Amino acid sequence: MCGIAKGAGMIAPRMRLATMLSFIVTDAAIAQGTLRKALADAVARSFNAITVDGCMSTNDTVVALANGLAANKTIVAGSRDYGIFLKVLREVCVALARMIVRDAEGATKFIAINVRRAVSDNEAEALAFAVANSALFKCAMFGSDPNWGRIAAALGAVGARLDWQKMTIALNGVFVFRRGRPVVFKKRGMLRGRDIDVTIDLAQGRGGKRVWTSDLSYGYVRINAAYN
Amino acid sequence: MCGIAKGAGMIAPRMRLATMLSFIVTDAAIAQGTLRKALADAVARSFNAITVDGCMSTNDTVVALANGLAANKTIVAGSRDYGIFLKVLREVCVALARMIVRDAEGATKFIAINVRRAVSDNEAEALAFAVANSALFKCAMFGSDPNWGRIAAALGAVGARLDWQKMTIALNGVFVFRRGRPVVFKKRGMLRGRDIDVTIDLAQGRGGKRVWTSDLSYGYVRINAAYN
Repeated sequence: MCGIAKGAGMIAPRMRLATMLSFIVTDAAIAQGTLRKALADAVARSFNAITVDGCMSTNDTVVALANGLAANKTIVAGSRDYGIFLKVLREVCVALARMIVRDAEGATKFIAINVRRAVSDNEAEALAFAVANSALFKCAMFGSDPNWGRIAAALGAVGARLDWQKMTIALNGVFVFRRGRPVVFKKRGMLRGRDIDVTIDLAQGRGGKRVWTSDLSYGYVRINAAYN
Repeated sequence: MCGIAKGAGMIAPRMRLATMLSFIVTDAAIAQGTLRKALADAVARSFNAITVDGCMSTNDTVVALANGLAANKTIVAGSRDYGIFLKVLREVCVALARMIVRDAEGATKFIAINVRRAVSDNEAEALAFAVANSALFKCAMFGSDPNWGRIAAALGAVGARLDWQKMTIALNGVFVFRRGRPVVFKKRGMLRGRDIDVTIDLAQGRGGKRVWTSDLSYGYVRINAAYN
């Protein structure tokens, strides 16, 4: 299996049908409907879990092609082979989606946002994207500023019923907010690297979502203000 | 009547109860409930019609105080005096809200977005804010780039049923997109000034909304990346 993708800006894909482009090819024998089902699953946790600037494009596309040259027994949904195929397809899609974020316009940071123990997966997704698309959060990341108040504000603005007395927020594994209280931590240098992990544990339920995003930098503004 | 306000960043107020702060005082005699009703009306078309960065704060506040020293007959809802009071209150709130946007972090542009003839006021509001909060649109405005494609993309991403064959988009009174077709226009210098008017006529119904916003500049990134 092999995949290629093109991204950079105007990246907040919501693939329901199909300026992000991605093509995945495999020599596996697999029926069209089964491949479509596998692709929908893989896209949900990869391309549809990234945002650069919250601006959805009109023509985001992921195409998967299978020519059957591997001459395997045709993969059917629910089989052991389907499980293996889906695992590989997910890996390819996640790898491409992450590469798009790393290559984002002006990006200096690669940020993973994990929302855990939400009431539902849908609420976890709304909360994760609210943080990922917050201009203030993205600018703080550009400045390597562990400003958890902006994370909390973005979560609060969603309008979900959150229990601040239970919630914890960690940046690169360091608790910065724990069960209703700020934590004293060493700020200097903690976000200096390119990769940043934001983990928000709501302690409310069994829903979860991980999304990937980039920071908002001078470079993003330059590229998009000087388009002509 | 007199009002003061403080704004700058984290500005996308949604006052339902009430880091924007505004205080309005009047010597008119007016009952508390009546003043509250008038304030809700005025806030809807002023403070709740602005966005700097789409980031709602936890503590946006508008307070109106009336001490009755004018010794007028107490204003009651529905009266002629109420109409006059409401008109003045709207003017004060709109003036303050516009000043907040002009004073926004890093702002070099003051942008009015008018959505006209939408199916409903609510849909007009969603469309106007989608454009106002689009990072790509805001960067284009910073670059004085009449990039109507980014306006159309932001409108399209809302998911409303729009009729592109009827829609027109005008920038500072110049049609750039008319009934499904781009218009040839002289780009150079047309958005050079500080004030920009974006008018989107959907030709679908009787709903409308005007919102005000600022551009996304190097200055906004600098202020918010170097917070500490």
